[in-house]
Amino acid sequence: MASSEGNKLWGGRFVGNTDPIMEKFNASIAYDQRMWEADIKGSKAYVKALQKAGLVTQNEMEQILTGLDKVFDEWSKGEFKIKPGDEDIHTANERRLKEFIGDPAGKLHTGRSRNDQVATDMRLWLRDAINTLKELALQLIKYSLCSHDLTNIEILCPGYTHMQRAQPIRWSHWILSHAVALSRDVERLEDIRKHVNVMPLGRLFLCIYNFKRILYGLLSMCLCTAEFLFWASMCLTHLSKMAEDLILYSTKEFSFITLTDAYSTGSSLMPQKKNADSLELIRSKAGRVFGRCAGFLMTLKGLPSTYNKDLQEDKEAMFDTYDTVHAVLQVATGVISTLMVNQPAMERALSPDMLATDLAYHLVRKGMPFREAHSCAGKAVYIAESKNIHLSQITVEDLQTVSPLFDKDVSSVWDYNRSVEQYSAPGGTARSSVTAQIEHFRTWLQAQKQKP
Amino acid sequence: MASSEGNKLWGGRFVGNTDPIMEKFNASIAYDQRMWEADIKGSKAYVKALQKAGLVTQNEMEQILTGLDKVFDEWSKGEFKIKPGDEDIHTANERRLKEFIGDPAGKLHTGRSRNDQVATDMRLWLRDAINTLKELALQLIKYSLCSHDLTNIEILCPGYTHMQRAQPIRWSHWILSHAVALSRDVERLEDIRKHVNVMPLGRLFLCIYNFKRILYGLLSMCLCTAEFLFWASMCLTHLSKMAEDLILYSTKEFSFITLTDAYSTGSSLMPQKKNADSLELIRSKAGRVFGRCAGFLMTLKGLPSTYNKDLQEDKEAMFDTYDTVHAVLQVATGVISTLMVNQPAMERALSPDMLATDLAYHLVRKGMPFREAHSCAGKAVYIAESKNIHLSQITVEDLQTVSPLFDKDVSSVWDYNRSVEQYSAPGGTARSSVTAQIEHFRTWLQAQKQKP
Amino acid sequence: MASSEGNKLWGGRFVGNTDPIMEKFNASIAYDQRMWEADIKGSKAYVKALQKAGLVTQNEMEQILTGLDKVFDEWSKGEFKIKPGDEDIHTANERRLKEFIGDPAGKLHTGRSRNDQVATDMRLWLRDAINTLKELALQLIKYSLCSHDLTNIEILCPGYTHMQRAQPIRWSHWILSHAVALSRDVERLEDIRKHVNVMPLGRLFLCIYNFKRILYGLLSMCLCTAEFLFWASMCLTHLSKMAEDLILYSTKEFSFITLTDAYSTGSSLMPQKKNADSLELIRSKAGRVFGRCAGFLMTLKGLPSTYNKDLQEDKEAMFDTYDTVHAVLQVATGVISTLMVNQPAMERALSPDMLATDLAYHLVRKGMPFREAHSCAGKAVYIAESKNIHLSQITVEDLQTVSPLFDKDVSSVWDYNRSVEQYSAPGGTARSSVTAQIEHFRTWLQAQKQKP
Amino acid sequence: MASSEGNKLWGGRFVGNTDPIMEKFNASIAYDQRMWEADIKGSKAYVKALQKAGLVTQNEMEQILTGLDKVFDEWSKGEFKIKPGDEDIHTANERRLKEFIGDPAGKLHTGRSRNDQVATDMRLWLRDAINTLKELALQLIKYSLCSHDLTNIEILCPGYTHMQRAQPIRWSHWILSHAVALSRDVERLEDIRKHVNVMPLGRLFLCIYNFKRILYGLLSMCLCTAEFLFWASMCLTHLSKMAEDLILYSTKEFSFITLTDAYSTGSSLMPQKKNADSLELIRSKAGRVFGRCAGFLMTLKGLPSTYNKDLQEDKEAMFDTYDTVHAVLQVATGVISTLMVNQPAMERALSPDMLATDLAYHLVRKGMPFREAHSCAGKAVYIAESKNIHLSQITVEDLQTVSPLFDKDVSSVWDYNRSVEQYSAPGGTARSSVTAQIEHFRTWLQAQKQKP
Repeated sequence: MASSEGNKLWGGRFVGNTDPIMEKFNASIAYDQRMWEADIKGSKAYVKALQKAGLVTQNEMEQILTGLDKVFDEWSKGEFKIKPGDEDIHTANERRLKEFIGDPAGKLHTGRSRNDQVATDMRLWLRDAINTLKELALQLIKYSLCSHDLTNIEILCPGYTHMQRAQPIRWSHWILSHAVALSRDVERLEDIRKHVNVMPLGRLFLCIYNFKRILYGLLSMCLCTAEFLFWASMCLTHLSKMAEDLILYSTKEFSFITLTDAYSTGSSLMPQKKNADSLELIRSKAGRVFGRCAGFLMTLKGLPSTYNKDLQEDKEAMFDTYDTVHAVLQVATGVISTLMVNQPAMERALSPDMLATDLAYHLVRKGMPFREAHSCAGKAVYIAESKNIHLSQITVEDLQTVSPLFDKDVSSVWDYNRSVEQYSAPGGTARSSVTAQIEHFRTWLQAQKQKP
Repeated sequence: MASSEGNKLWGGRFVGNTDPIMEKFNASIAYDQRMWEADIKGSKAYVKALQKAGLVTQNEMEQILTGLDKVFDEWSKGEFKIKPGDEDIHTANERRLKEFIGDPAGKLHTGRSRNDQVATDMRLWLRDAINTLKELALQLIKYSLCSHDLTNIEILCPGYTHMQRAQPIRWSHWILSHAVALSRDVERLEDIRKHVNVMPLGRLFLCIYNFKRILYGLLSMCLCTAEFLFWASMCLTHLSKMAEDLILYSTKEFSFITLTDAYSTGSSLMPQKKNADSLELIRSKAGRVFGRCAGFLMTLKGLPSTYNKDLQEDKEAMFDTYDTVHAVLQVATGVISTLMVNQPAMERALSPDMLATDLAYHLVRKGMPFREAHSCAGKAVYIAESKNIHLSQITVEDLQTVSPLFDKDVSSVWDYNRSVEQYSAPGGTARSSVTAQIEHFRTWLQAQKQKP
Repeated sequence: MASSEGNKLWGGRFVGNTDPIMEKFNASIAYDQRMWEADIKGSKAYVKALQKAGLVTQNEMEQILTGLDKVFDEWSKGEFKIKPGDEDIHTANERRLKEFIGDPAGKLHTGRSRNDQVATDMRLWLRDAINTLKELALQLIKYSLCSHDLTNIEILCPGYTHMQRAQPIRWSHWILSHAVALSRDVERLEDIRKHVNVMPLGRLFLCIYNFKRILYGLLSMCLCTAEFLFWASMCLTHLSKMAEDLILYSTKEFSFITLTDAYSTGSSLMPQKKNADSLELIRSKAGRVFGRCAGFLMTLKGLPSTYNKDLQEDKEAMFDTYDTVHAVLQVATGVISTLMVNQPAMERALSPDMLATDLAYHLVRKGMPFREAHSCAGKAVYIAESKNIHLSQITVEDLQTVSPLFDKDVSSVWDYNRSVEQYSAPGGTARSSVTAQIEHFRTWLQAQKQKP
Repeated sequence: MASSEGNKLWGGRFVGNTDPIMEKFNASIAYDQRMWEADIKGSKAYVKALQKAGLVTQNEMEQILTGLDKVFDEWSKGEFKIKPGDEDIHTANERRLKEFIGDPAGKLHTGRSRNDQVATDMRLWLRDAINTLKELALQLIKYSLCSHDLTNIEILCPGYTHMQRAQPIRWSHWILSHAVALSRDVERLEDIRKHVNVMPLGRLFLCIYNFKRILYGLLSMCLCTAEFLFWASMCLTHLSKMAEDLILYSTKEFSFITLTDAYSTGSSLMPQKKNADSLELIRSKAGRVFGRCAGFLMTLKGLPSTYNKDLQEDKEAMFDTYDTVHAVLQVATGVISTLMVNQPAMERALSPDMLATDLAYHLVRKGMPFREAHSCAGKAVYIAESKNIHLSQITVEDLQTVSPLFDKDVSSVWDYNRSVEQYSAPGGTARSSVTAQIEHFRTWLQAQKQKP
């Protein structure tokens, strides 16, 4: 009986052997070993709580802490050897601890079930992970998006809705719109961090009253994991939109931007190809990460409450999602901070019909209700299309057939710079507005850095 | 040209006719009419902003406000007639306004695109919706979950993990674990409310600088919608777990609870059947709502930034999700506040092997490390199983073959009440702990009610 | 007791009243009434089986059939009145039948549970639905995709990979690639039809041995529903790709195609806008439909086998998916059959670097291994880019610095027509290949029409 | 220029360096190396086609074949060394081939892009994968499900709907219902195999006309991958239902079955626990696999047609799904073939109210319409509940208050064996029916084995 049960923490009453396929199916060590550091940290805090509670002696505590430091050392140096029977990181670390210090190792788990330990490890790990991703998101905002703004503030380009040219904007404005989205993502990540970070040492002590933890603690950790997966899905969905824009802008037809070779690849068949693979990969990952979120929620659905082994699915989903977002944020920073902006192409893409809204406002300023002015401008567009000329080329006489309010001063409308400058309210496209937004971001970034 | 374009807000330049199937495919009036009130409220605020900005006169503003009140009246009385060409609620309301007050109606949309208006309407609508759902969730906590606690605090039942009997708990404890989950959901709903509620009147004024709104405003609203859909998915996933537990508890095999007839249905074939349909429906809705979330995110993925018609998918997803959560919360309140608890059946389900952990702690208190104690208790379980007796029936002699630390005082372990009472820390199963948690909830509920 | 139970088919033993919110939550009549015809057809077949089995008399059968015809009539004329208590279409039809013919109506359900009836109704309904969708998909192939081919066979345009210009193709070739995808969808739809269509009258007879049906029949119908939802997701994912291409091609920057006004909409703000809303809606629906599929599978996950009320989610998912695919196929047919192709713009978009692969093959034909030839062509591209000239403008001298195999005859490479004509194998871009493919499709379409 | 580009197949024109994070982000060798065998097989077939087409000489072909065999050998022996720059399995194999045979290696890729090669490799790999999974599914049916049938044919147990006891069935019947579901899965897997297996050598030849392949071939492979992912989702959803049933049946409250220790695990806290972890893991995997399907479809949504790098997501999804289904089928076979059936517990769970339907049929046989008989049986159930006696204990007098048709012969109803025996039609619960179904399965299994 003894020998077959190996190091399993729950092996007291089992007499049969485990099917080796089942053993592998059941084991999580292949992926949860990356929480080795969180696991040891958590155990060190826990043994101190046990000592305070009088459940281990000062001496036992010291033995355990020294032993845990030795286990830590082995992992740090890449020398830890996983053995058969180490089904998860907790079992592996406890087995090794016992090899180092013998019996006292057995006291470490007083009043703590493996589920408590998993939940603790995951919280510690995820808290660090969130900090790292926040840092990377801030870098993406700072070194790429924001730095683009000022150097490029004079560059005008078409703003698009429905992929059709809408109104002229500043290129900085496009950049800022994505920086705003990312800053929202950072703020939401902070919220999740708060939910994750609810386990001060004082709480750890309570773990010895374990049933409460099984009822509440697990659910709460599942919630955090699911929130993190969804956060990642939203963040990568934003970046998929940014990537889509940039893929379009890097087509020959748009030619607004050129990626550096470092973020492009070629074709094994067609020698002239230069593909925006980096951006396509970024775009693709929203699907991958959301798939993890969908899978985890489907696994959770309809489970009885408390722990069920189904919940083991949380870890691979969390790790893969973290790795994916981690890579995407870095590659996005690289792509954006190195892309070359083709100002002449952007400006060639501006056309007088994009000033049709300004033409309507011109009439509004002369007292016409907006809806009527919109209709008049629409008719002017129709005339230009029929005559195959630019909107700015319609004669005043022709415009007057649409509305008698048109006059020579209509010529002032046909100026892209004047068009963007007129939106000078906060958030607008005027130089002053854009500069103010950039300043706002710098202040915000500064504040983020100083957070704990 | 004129006649075919009907009331469409963008009809200036179109000369062809729309395919009727396309017309229906494109129209959202069938579902977005439920935002009629939000649409009128938003327009009233907007025209006041226009007047302050000098873009409409005092007189025009008053005409528009009076006209909007008339439109409001028609909707309230169910007398508003949707006409062909009313492709969405905004077009319908503006069309009707124009019929009431003529030309000045055309000034209402100065500097405001339909996308601005949709985003505003959705914010106003969703804010109200969130308030309502919060109220219903609080009711579920208050009138059902919390009221159960005190009356049932003496009832013991098995706590389960992996659907296997684990340790004795109080029935109130089970109830509380779901109340905690729901309270977390309420808190997260509050967070979303903050994200939705970012549009004071002062901001509305800025809408006239519209391009900013298209870049930022839409994305931000999409984010809120997606967050709401995910919140609903999480909330219903919790309730699917609660429903699963209760479905099991209402089987003949468990017989822990009985639903009232009001929440049960029978079989058209088998006369004796009494099915927990209400709970099964609750369980099922997590899938429905998450499907909406998944669908919306898939629609968002890879879209170019700013507005694309694809975003029209947001509204039906939001409405259906709201309606579903609305019904689920109410039915859950009904089910739980009326279910009958079968105390004898719960207590019959307690068995001495559920005290095996206490047996281990008994040894820990005598100085044995927990792991060793766990193993000894496991061996005791094995002995009991081999002899086909209860764990509590093993003789002290037999126990001493497992560990010499066992003595006559082991008999104190075999007491379920003593078992739950020993977990007296916050969150524990002792009567004092449970009472404290109920008090905590009452305070929390009180605080929630007083929030704005 | 009697009065409160109304018409409910399972009301024999219930004494409490149902909560009205629960009543509505539980009822499916709001959406399942659209299966009225299938329900009556199924009942007519069933009563005939009962009569053969001697479970109803000839006379009773005739009464029931006559009664069912009256119910049918009411539905056809829109005169059927749903009453309180008609919780689903089966209850409604049976209630009405009883009003028409009295007691014999009660014999109709001998040995048939409502679950049997639902599964039968859904099969009959879905079979018809599949036939309709197949017809619409064939129309999309025939009247739009295929008709484009021949008229446009001379139009060359860039083929893209990664949205970068790759090699010249025929426009017909692009059209054909989507026709192929659709034809695959039609074939897969046929497969599902076979799975759905497994219920000849002979089987119906067996329904009276009902338990088997609950075990097998429901699962099998769930499978068909899930397969249909997934089929729809795949089909609309294809169409989302087609829509994405066309949205790009209709940008000002590409200008390859122009949608007719019937499938475009304008902007309520910007008078010059003409947006490809129809295509954006098509693109968006892949998300909607897949959301239904995801939701339904999540609902199914982990359910105990046989019937659980959770399965009621199947119908709304099925109906909404059907309606969505129905509209998308029709709108897609409209868009494609009316879009205008801008041949000059397509041909302007061809550029000599797209012949770089042909340049490599030119060297391969002179004996160079392909990898080396690919590298040489790549170097030629680099020279052209460095000198800011077209690939076709590099002098033979310069080319010879790359490889001595280059000679004057390289000039034959710079011909787009020659380039597409060289791929003359089945499936290639040569005129003969394209014509053959169109012929193949015509034959295939003919064969589809003649299927049962 | 030369040195930095390493072995990349498309490196001709690039002068910048790749960001190492991008390099890793872009590379697929970490996971696609498991297609090494398919890649070499495909290349061997391809070079033979090139030789037939006169594009390589007999001698070159032989060199290439010999070289490929050497590469094959290295992989087989685990001696293949992946080098920096080997971004995918195709690059790695070609690089190694070149090291073995020099220049002729460059001819292998004439007219074949990497995308062609990937699609070919995936088809070959997936075809083998499908064969393996089919084999495992057949084993699950044969060695476990079917073998249970005959040994257990006498065991009666409750059939459940809505988790409430419905009618008595044979345990074999429950087993058979899942065997039927699995046999459907096997048949659908066969369908996918046909879609995958469309690439005889003859087609390979056509690859040299590559553009067609990019248009059609990729889409077709995506379709196969998506179908496979969905198939796996459906199959594991079935198994999640089976697992759910068995988890319930293994609770103390049901006690219908006991898992062997090989498929159970214990608790690190509670010594008495024996958890059905194997079944919980099986149940959980439906979520995981469907998450992969959802993620892949979301990635596909809205992509432009032809190849985009986003499609690289297909491989990890396919591999992980295969590995998961592979493990689940084996573990399920182990669990079911070793579980112990607790016949007395099953039979104790039968109760007379489960014969209420039979009581109704008893009246039907005496001429009462079924609906009325159902209502009478319902009233009898109500009487029994009110008197707190078994349905079978109601006196004939009391029954006659419900219907005068009741007589002494009602006692024949209260016999579970008679109840199951009366359903003797195909698919029924009678011994003869069950035996016939088992025979049917054996024949079907035999036929499956003999398929190619």
